[in-house]
Amino acid sequence: TIVRVLEEQESKEQPLVGKHVLITAGPTQESVDPVRFFTNHSSGKMGYAIARQAADLGASVTLVSGPVSLDTPPGVKRIDVVSAEDMYEAVLNEMESADVIIKAAAVADYRPKETYSSKMKKQEGPLTLQFERTKDILKEVGKRRREGQFIVGFAAETDEPVRYGQEKMERKRLDAIVVNDISAEGAGFKGDTNVVTYLNRNGKQEAYPLLTKDDVARRLLLSIATDLKGE
Amino acid sequence: TIVRVLEEQESKEQPLVGKHVLITAGPTQESVDPVRFFTNHSSGKMGYAIARQAADLGASVTLVSGPVSLDTPPGVKRIDVVSAEDMYEAVLNEMESADVIIKAAAVADYRPKETYSSKMKKQEGPLTLQFERTKDILKEVGKRRREGQFIVGFAAETDEPVRYGQEKMERKRLDAIVVNDISAEGAGFKGDTNVVTYLNRNGKQEAYPLLTKDDVARRLLLSIATDLKGE
Repeated sequence: TIVRVLEEQESKEQPLVGKHVLITAGPTQESVDPVRFFTNHSSGKMGYAIARQAADLGASVTLVSGPVSLDTPPGVKRIDVVSAEDMYEAVLNEMESADVIIKAAAVADYRPKETYSSKMKKQEGPLTLQFERTKDILKEVGKRRREGQFIVGFAAETDEPVRYGQEKMERKRLDAIVVNDISAEGAGFKGDTNVVTYLNRNGKQEAYPLLTKDDVARRLLLSIATDLKGE
Repeated sequence: TIVRVLEEQESKEQPLVGKHVLITAGPTQESVDPVRFFTNHSSGKMGYAIARQAADLGASVTLVSGPVSLDTPPGVKRIDVVSAEDMYEAVLNEMESADVIIKAAAVADYRPKETYSSKMKKQEGPLTLQFERTKDILKEVGKRRREGQFIVGFAAETDEPVRYGQEKMERKRLDAIVVNDISAEGAGFKGDTNVVTYLNRNGKQEAYPLLTKDDVARRLLLSIATDLKGE
């Protein structure tokens, strides 16, 4: 009936209608040669869950994704990248129109100083590789942010995640940060659940229970929507 | 009809009935810390195709697999490993009963000298990492081989693959080697096709055309079955 349809529409919160949400997800790969590379255990599941839920909450969503084996959520614009350098370029290209930027990707901090175009031959004995820092995407986003943009970082840590997260939020001038202790039961990169704490710059600290990544994503986005309105 | 069933059975070659084939597949991951690791672009598709076709050709198949996102082929016993060290242990444990050993895995040659149990913190400026050689699985398999075992290596190269493959076959005392030029069109790690050359120690050199990995696998196994009978 018409009444039922209206009730259902009403019960479906869509607090992100009219908002453009830019999300990064997955790992990056930093090549040593055409065969070997340096990467991390990010599966992309957390970032993809945020993209899916943001679209469901009415946002227009752009997802900048490192190499993962996940399907693009319905209605999401996906841009594939490989290296930290690629991700840096893509985020800076896309950030202008974004109202919310959520950096869930696990971008490599270091990359090999030299990349060989042919496969490196093995040699006897040990090998020393030089690494250099990759560009700091969040820092650059913080510099270029315009009035009204809301920037959310992630901190996946094994030691004192909340303390480290607060420090990172200040250092990078974020509006909020999501910290997780990847050594905790049910948390971390590969599983379908996560245990996170949402911190914002006004001192809010919300520790979520163990939830599926989709439920974590939904709660995060509702917290972000509340914080957006509060500004 | 009965005649048709018999014809079909006859037309289905099963030259590997009664043979135990041990196959390695996929990359290995070598940890720097709980988050970061060193790996390579092997998808495991070639090794999995060999496992699937070997089972189809009647063999009893054991597949020692690095981290990949592929389903275990029907009837195949799969043993999952992460690092080169794990793969070394698994292959040595399993090799005794194998008639044919096919090393399709892209095992890391190097691993970080130190593995940190907590996530390494970023620091300013460059980073130097020390790497050490991993154990040479093929070399150890060559040492421990027993009479009648047939050992097949792979060489994925970007430069002069056939010349390098012949040299590797001799150095590691292999019965045969499959070489592919991963820089060639339609060859390499990620796709569903491959272009390979089969070399054996009697000087046979078979260059296959561009084929799906399943067709490459089937031809390889038929070549191996022929070489096995010839011994």
